[in-house]
This record gives sequence, structure tokens and C-alpha cells, in this order.
Amino acid sequence: MTDEYFMEIALSLAEEAADDGEIPVGALVVCRNRIIGKARNQTEQLGDVTAHAEMMAITAATQYLGGKYLADCTLYVTLEPCAMCAGALFWSQIGRLVIGAADPKRGYSRHEPSLLHPKTRLETGILADECQALLTKFFRGLRT
Amino acid sequence: MTDEYFMEIALSLAEEAADDGEIPVGALVVCRNRIIGKARNQTEQLGDVTAHAEMMAITAATQYLGGKYLADCTLYVTLEPCAMCAGALFWSQIGRLVIGAADPKRGYSRHEPSLLHPKTRLETGILADECQALLTKFFRGLRT
Repeated sequence: MTDEYFMEIALSLAEEAADDGEIPVGALVVCRNRIIGKARNQTEQLGDVTAHAEMMAITAATQYLGGKYLADCTLYVTLEPCAMCAGALFWSQIGRLVIGAADPKRGYSRHEPSLLHPKTRLETGILADECQALLTKFFRGLRT
Repeated sequence: MTDEYFMEIALSLAEEAADDGEIPVGALVVCRNRIIGKARNQTEQLGDVTAHAEMMAITAATQYLGGKYLADCTLYVTLEPCAMCAGALFWSQIGRLVIGAADPKRGYSRHEPSLLHPKTRLETGILADECQALLTKFFRGLRT
């Protein structure tokens, strides 16, 4: 199964977030081609700034595995993680991070030294146009 | 009530964490001299890297207030927050952050640009020796 396959699923989670009036971000944790954690942004619904898709996908995956570390796993997320989520990914020692759209304003990659774990492999730009289009449509809707 | 008063309570939470075999960190959210969220590090017990004291104190406080933002609140924490927790504090727009011991290895302040919200006022070194002593004792115990 390809990165695009899993990012499509993350995108469908992001669409569910948009339907709920949430900034559309979706995330999955995949281990040996199996989805072991998935979530969409729920900060508004839960009234909780920590309820980003990545955070809840990490928690779900570690609960599934019964351990704190995700070294053999890949996290797919439709938008570049913020510093909080990158910090959580650091602690999880995630093996691989696959990102859809970049987030020049709030993305973790603005910060030095890098917030990612040195062992985390990084892939960016997977279905970036689709991920970005969903965000653009959402924010355009907010302004009208 | 003073910063030292609230940091003592955070320290007692950190001691509870140590008793549970967790890295001893405690955190409180205070709003108008009232504690509206408190937590201790529970990453081992919950098997969840996101279960830092600050994260759970923020979630508790926002649940208490019924809103996402903590602009009128102070977070007290016995150890300098990591990047994840600083990122969460950014999103919460916490009004004030009061830190006990510094964390030169994993603390948020190693990173540039700053991970804190520009409106967050910062106070460091409150009961720093006591906070550090508890950590030193804990890690010394792990090595014996």
C-alpha cells in the first residue's frame, strides 16, 4: 500500500473535521500496513487545544500497541504538524512522518534545532494539493 | 497567594508522580487564585507520551472553564516544559508561565523562534532547588 493510499484516508478524516466546523486536519498511525490509530482535529468540539488529530492518533496507536513508542510506525497527516504535535512525535520516536500540505505559519519546521526525533524519517508533499485545497475551501467558507 | 505557594502544590504533585515511578513533574493552572486544573506526569501509567503534567492540567482547566483559552490563567510547573507542552501552552494563549527547575536538555527554550505565545509572561526559577532536588533524587534512584 502506498503513501497516497493512506493519505487519502487521512484526507477523508480531515473532511469529516470540516463537516463538524473544525479546521480540516486528519491523521493516521500505520504499523506494517495496518491502521492502528486515526483521528481528526476536534479542538472546537472538545474545547481543548490539545485535541489535534496527530495527538489523538498517537494516543490511540500507543493504546493499541500497549507501549509508549512508535518506532516501527508511520504517522500520516494532511497538514504539517505544529510544534506541540512535533514534540509529541519526538517523544513517541515515530519511525516515519508523512505530511500532506506545508504550514509555513504554524508548522514545526520553522523552529531550530529540529523538533523531530533524529531517527524519524520524513516525507513531505504527499497529496499536498488536495490537502491544501480542503484547508483553503474551509477558511474561505469562514470568511463569507 | 504567592508563586511559591502554588509551586509548593505543584511540587507535591511531582512527589506523587515519583511515588508512582514517574519522572516527577507536577503542574497547576491557576485563575484568580483558584486552582482550576492540576496534574502530575503519568506517561508510564497511561503508556502515553502525551500524558505530561502540563498537557493534562491544560485540558482540565479548559474543561473547567468551558473554553479553549487560558489568557487569564497562570500555569505553574516544576520543570521547564518540553516543546510539546510549550506548543500546547501557545495554543492555550496562557497568560503567565511559572517554572521551577530549568531543563537544558529537553526544555522548550532551546528552540528558536520561541515556542511560547507572545502574550505569555514568563517567570523562572521559583523553588528551583527543591524542584531540581526531586528530579535528581528520582534519577539517582533509577541508577542504583
